[in-house]
Amino acid sequence: MSLIVQKFGGSSVATPDLIKHVAGRVAATRESGHDVVVVVSAPGDTTDNLIGLAEQITTSPADREMDMLLSTGEQVSIALLAMALHTRGHRAVSLTGAQALIRTEPVHLRARIMGVDRSRLDRELGAGRIVIVAGFQGITDDGEITTLGRGGSDTTAVALASVLDARICQIYTDVEGVFTADPRVVPEAKKLAEISYDEMLEMASSGALVLQTRAAELAKQYRVPLEVRSTFVDRGGTVVTDRTIEGRRLVTAVTHDRNVAKIAATGIQDRPGIAHTLFRAIADRHVNVNLIIQSVPQAQGADISFTVARSDMAAAVEAARSVAGEIGARDIISDEGVAMVSIVGAGMITNPGVAAQMFGVLARNGINIELIATSEIKVSCVVRADEAEKAVRVLHAEFRLDED
Amino acid sequence: MSLIVQKFGGSSVATPDLIKHVAGRVAATRESGHDVVVVVSAPGDTTDNLIGLAEQITTSPADREMDMLLSTGEQVSIALLAMALHTRGHRAVSLTGAQALIRTEPVHLRARIMGVDRSRLDRELGAGRIVIVAGFQGITDDGEITTLGRGGSDTTAVALASVLDARICQIYTDVEGVFTADPRVVPEAKKLAEISYDEMLEMASSGALVLQTRAAELAKQYRVPLEVRSTFVDRGGTVVTDRTIEGRRLVTAVTHDRNVAKIAATGIQDRPGIAHTLFRAIADRHVNVNLIIQSVPQAQGADISFTVARSDMAAAVEAARSVAGEIGARDIISDEGVAMVSIVGAGMITNPGVAAQMFGVLARNGINIELIATSEIKVSCVVRADEAEKAVRVLHAEFRLDED
Repeated sequence: MSLIVQKFGGSSVATPDLIKHVAGRVAATRESGHDVVVVVSAPGDTTDNLIGLAEQITTSPADREMDMLLSTGEQVSIALLAMALHTRGHRAVSLTGAQALIRTEPVHLRARIMGVDRSRLDRELGAGRIVIVAGFQGITDDGEITTLGRGGSDTTAVALASVLDARICQIYTDVEGVFTADPRVVPEAKKLAEISYDEMLEMASSGALVLQTRAAELAKQYRVPLEVRSTFVDRGGTVVTDRTIEGRRLVTAVTHDRNVAKIAATGIQDRPGIAHTLFRAIADRHVNVNLIIQSVPQAQGADISFTVARSDMAAAVEAARSVAGEIGARDIISDEGVAMVSIVGAGMITNPGVAAQMFGVLARNGINIELIATSEIKVSCVVRADEAEKAVRVLHAEFRLDED
Repeated sequence: MSLIVQKFGGSSVATPDLIKHVAGRVAATRESGHDVVVVVSAPGDTTDNLIGLAEQITTSPADREMDMLLSTGEQVSIALLAMALHTRGHRAVSLTGAQALIRTEPVHLRARIMGVDRSRLDRELGAGRIVIVAGFQGITDDGEITTLGRGGSDTTAVALASVLDARICQIYTDVEGVFTADPRVVPEAKKLAEISYDEMLEMASSGALVLQTRAAELAKQYRVPLEVRSTFVDRGGTVVTDRTIEGRRLVTAVTHDRNVAKIAATGIQDRPGIAHTLFRAIADRHVNVNLIIQSVPQAQGADISFTVARSDMAAAVEAARSVAGEIGARDIISDEGVAMVSIVGAGMITNPGVAAQMFGVLARNGINIELIATSEIKVSCVVRADEAEKAVRVLHAEFRLDED
């Protein structure tokens, strides 16, 4: 019997009625003859509500206690989903991250999974049960409750699919799959039937919210077969695969990310080790840096600019200030009024003109580019936040993503 | 340094502002030089809200999944209280029942504590931390989450006070202590400065809601010094002690309990083993029976009547019906329209006329008694529910509990 891992996000389990709907999905998979492991997020606004409670107590809650607080959300979902499956006559058991033996590093709010001991999962599956695992959470070797950070339930699902050698890991969400651009910004955006791990990874890291970056990374690393599909519309979604697709267009999708802040350390005297000192300080605060640009040194020194998630801006600025003296920075400047717009496509590797084409179309439309970063299959531009949607639309049209 | 265990009920931690208030109480105790272990219940209506969610899914949730669901409530409280203590500059750490190593029997919804491994508690206290433990919950040897049943946080507090040899276990609640009767029913009721374990136990089991019966039992068994006092008014409460108090009046308090249902098995042919069969069946469903009366056998058989908590009525009726054939019962009758009124007092032991005095005053006031049960220091009468408050008032006056 082959195993399917299904992950349902918070909007899919926001109410008891939605949970019953999800139970229907899970039951149908089980009834078609598969073993099923389900991963669920906290219901709807639960996590935000819990954060709201903490904010009424303190502006700087201890990370450990936030994990203690936030991990309750998924625990509510798994219990309710187990009940809903029972009413359909299915055997099902809910497991917290700790009970599912999802071991993480001893870091709070953004722990990484170090391993999964499959013994309990195997025992429950062996007893014919649908296993419902709380996403987003794990446990350290010391028995401390940790959470995996934003979108961590995706990571839980991919990790379980990998460890259990699942036939497929299905990410159920409130959109029908991965689109050529955010359909709320570009109405003519099209659903992609298939994309590569690399494209999924680049899209996830550049603002496509259907899958968390770390989950995409893990899926790529362990070649976990992945499908992003809708909880509400019973249609095939987007399959993420390692197949190489010949004849693909240069650009697969345009993404944008508003959750970006730009930070610059200015007037740095260029010498070896500067970047290491700066980004070590930031990494020590567990802040991910997305895009890094170092300007050409001039008389008044060089600038290092980088972007982080907005929620990490304060921590990153504090980190940069803490080493400003050491790296000889004149000033640390932060800017929340930016967004990142990216084009992603496996076809870019062999077609060097794509980046130039992107800069050209933005220039023709009067959109100023503040920072640029490229990878083999992605070009990202930081622009003013209020020009991001326009940039997405003109790029979507330029690369003819609305055509079949 | 002596250790104090403080327990705060749900109404004491219902909102972030109340949690900050509780943190003030705890901090003051810590600052006066004590080690402190705090036990908290779920905030306010949280447990009821969670039950409401489950009810929207199913009318018969699995007990295990209810425990998974309900145990999240206290986890929210402990995290928020830890944060509130941090903002006051105190070191504090929250622990779930599992993390505090509160081991229970493998029974859901009403597990009993089998033992507490104090190693983690000692480690945290040794590190100078205030330890905040989730009440109401524990963990089985198999790592399953269990809950202790209604009022279980009291039991957690008393168990921890016993294991840690606390100087005192303070039960903070929304009333100022133990009263001679419920002040909402008898406005002239007086707060008792001191009562005995036995009186507390009899009062708890007969409807005084300030302390859970099992907690009172445990406190008595292990001689845990106990104080029931107000979260909101900083005044001494009621001390529960094993001191014998000379010259005490006959009756210490009048209690009443509306959470009662009466069940009767009628027309039973009296032979040995009947009662055992019936109450074994009920015990197997983990239902506590409060009061049992067997009528004198007559030609048409004997009746066995008993009371249970209203929430257990359906299970108790089902249990009785399952053995009705075996015990030769003609019928199983249930009645939710009753309440229990009790007088409690250590002085009763040596004064046999008290029960008769109680029956006399009820009769004079036209209140019919349906069942009677007595212990050494308590007399309980089951009456119609709508006559219970009147019964409490006339008894409170009869035994002059309003006088100093």
